[in-house]
Amino acid sequence: MRATIMYQAGDVRIETIPDARIQQPTDAVIRIVRACICGSDLWPFRLKQPDGKGQNMGHEAIGRVEAVGADVRKIKVGDVVIMPFAYSDGSCDFCHEGLHTSCMHGGFFGNSEVGGAQAEALRIPLADGTLYPVPIGEDHALMASLLTLSDVMGTGHHAAVVARVREGKKAAVVGDGAVGLCGVIAAKRLGAEQIILLGRHADRIALAKTFGVTDVVSERGGEAVERVRELTGGMGVHSVLECVGSEQAMATSMGIVRAGGAVSRIGVPHYDVIPQAQPMFYHNVIVGGGPAPVRAYIEELLPDVPDGYRAMDARESLKVMVQP
Amino acid sequence: MRATIMYQAGDVRIETIPDARIQQPTDAVIRIVRACICGSDLWPFRLKQPDGKGQNMGHEAIGRVEAVGADVRKIKVGDVVIMPFAYSDGSCDFCHEGLHTSCMHGGFFGNSEVGGAQAEALRIPLADGTLYPVPIGEDHALMASLLTLSDVMGTGHHAAVVARVREGKKAAVVGDGAVGLCGVIAAKRLGAEQIILLGRHADRIALAKTFGVTDVVSERGGEAVERVRELTGGMGVHSVLECVGSEQAMATSMGIVRAGGAVSRIGVPHYDVIPQAQPMFYHNVIVGGGPAPVRAYIEELLPDVPDGYRAMDARESLKVMVQP
Repeated sequence: MRATIMYQAGDVRIETIPDARIQQPTDAVIRIVRACICGSDLWPFRLKQPDGKGQNMGHEAIGRVEAVGADVRKIKVGDVVIMPFAYSDGSCDFCHEGLHTSCMHGGFFGNSEVGGAQAEALRIPLADGTLYPVPIGEDHALMASLLTLSDVMGTGHHAAVVARVREGKKAAVVGDGAVGLCGVIAAKRLGAEQIILLGRHADRIALAKTFGVTDVVSERGGEAVERVRELTGGMGVHSVLECVGSEQAMATSMGIVRAGGAVSRIGVPHYDVIPQAQPMFYHNVIVGGGPAPVRAYIEELLPDVPDGYRAMDARESLKVMVQP
Repeated sequence: MRATIMYQAGDVRIETIPDARIQQPTDAVIRIVRACICGSDLWPFRLKQPDGKGQNMGHEAIGRVEAVGADVRKIKVGDVVIMPFAYSDGSCDFCHEGLHTSCMHGGFFGNSEVGGAQAEALRIPLADGTLYPVPIGEDHALMASLLTLSDVMGTGHHAAVVARVREGKKAAVVGDGAVGLCGVIAAKRLGAEQIILLGRHADRIALAKTFGVTDVVSERGGEAVERVRELTGGMGVHSVLECVGSEQAMATSMGIVRAGGAVSRIGVPHYDVIPQAQPMFYHNVIVGGGPAPVRAYIEELLPDVPDGYRAMDARESLKVMVQP
């Protein structure tokens, strides 16, 4: 079958690899119906050092189940399923706590061991715990929207949850990429009264305004901090959704958070320490975030897919959907 | 009047300074009945550089009100009052949110501007918002216990709250000083099932065991991390109460926290960055903490003062109470 393999920065190839097949009795194999290129895929595309091995790309997909192992009970051949970017058993302590990305037997898609979703098919470990069947056909109008539940919408929602977005409070979203825009949708959905977007792309900003953004800050660094302070009576925002992952985005986030507020880090971090540990202490700021347990959120977010659909709509340059 | 002034590391003097007096109509003046030397006072005692000015010491006290300004309504001359280590108006957004240490008109005691509580008397700004009257006499048996509500017990409670201690979950307390021991009391009070104390002082450990500590780890660094992992089935604890403030204590805390868990920093931090930003991300760890809004906690903790009393009991070497 064909699959997407990245060898080093800038060197990504479509290659023929052995067909995906059942290896464990808890596995399923899905034929990929739709997959995505994620913002996090751009990091290796820019930075990956050659190591002689290719990386199987892709971790966001909807598929149709082609085969199941002997011990798979809930998932059936023919099911259309959402595949979260991490696989999980659904039964360990962490899964019960809703933190499927820390599942004791789980792991992530998009590597040589498990394979990637930017391919014709994919083996899904722990299929019963991992996959979420949706009762629709492959040609359903909401397919693109449902696809957001495999990563980007669940990730934006996680950002809003960890940043403690609350009814009537102020939030800022740092970054106007796909996750940032989903963070805006999530912040609005959880009741934020003021939503400040820090971004510079006119098309994304226009889209974000339809999702509920009340203010836009296109300055950077200290000027951005100053501008957010102005927009919030000098105090900063209760919730910061850091959707970039760079050192500068994190520094800005720490600068705009209100005393007693929370910063959620949801962009894969490309830095080793959290800055400003002293002001963070004196202002009782909370920092959290990490890989979103999207599996835990699918059920809650499913009724909101039309919003996700609007998010996916008209953004060829914002997020790329792959139809094998 | 006499007051405690620190000039530089190791150089602390009792001096005669102008009497405390009403300066603003919202002030009160209290005669100090009991005050404490705080663990945080030891940082300047060890590190303070000479700057030509003395620092007025002391921020934990119980007093009797001697005078009130014209606009003071709730506090009356003669009241016995608990004085939290920060003053606050009790009416701004932050105070309403229970974060009195970020009060928009507030500040901290124990400096040249406001004065310190290791003195015969002290001016209390914003007396109505700051002071908490208790209906007892100066010679009450629980005086020492009530004194813990001005800082150390509220601080231990804040550590447990921010670290999200929950019924039936696992907690670790890093540091066996007065705040650490109060953190143990608070973790027990909030229902932690396993409470691991990281400390090395036999007398404090013995006391901590009477408060509910289930395991003691006296190793340091990587060995301490390994030992806590062993005690928790390899997973670490849900809640870490970091009650020291050193870089090493913080590194240990990040090493022993469970995926999805929380670290609260409650020791005044003597480092500039939070380490291990990447594992913290991949394990969805939350870091928070800061100066405890003890004013917000007094009412909740007041019924528990007998436990505080046991904490204060028999610890001449653990926390020093000052009777002017």
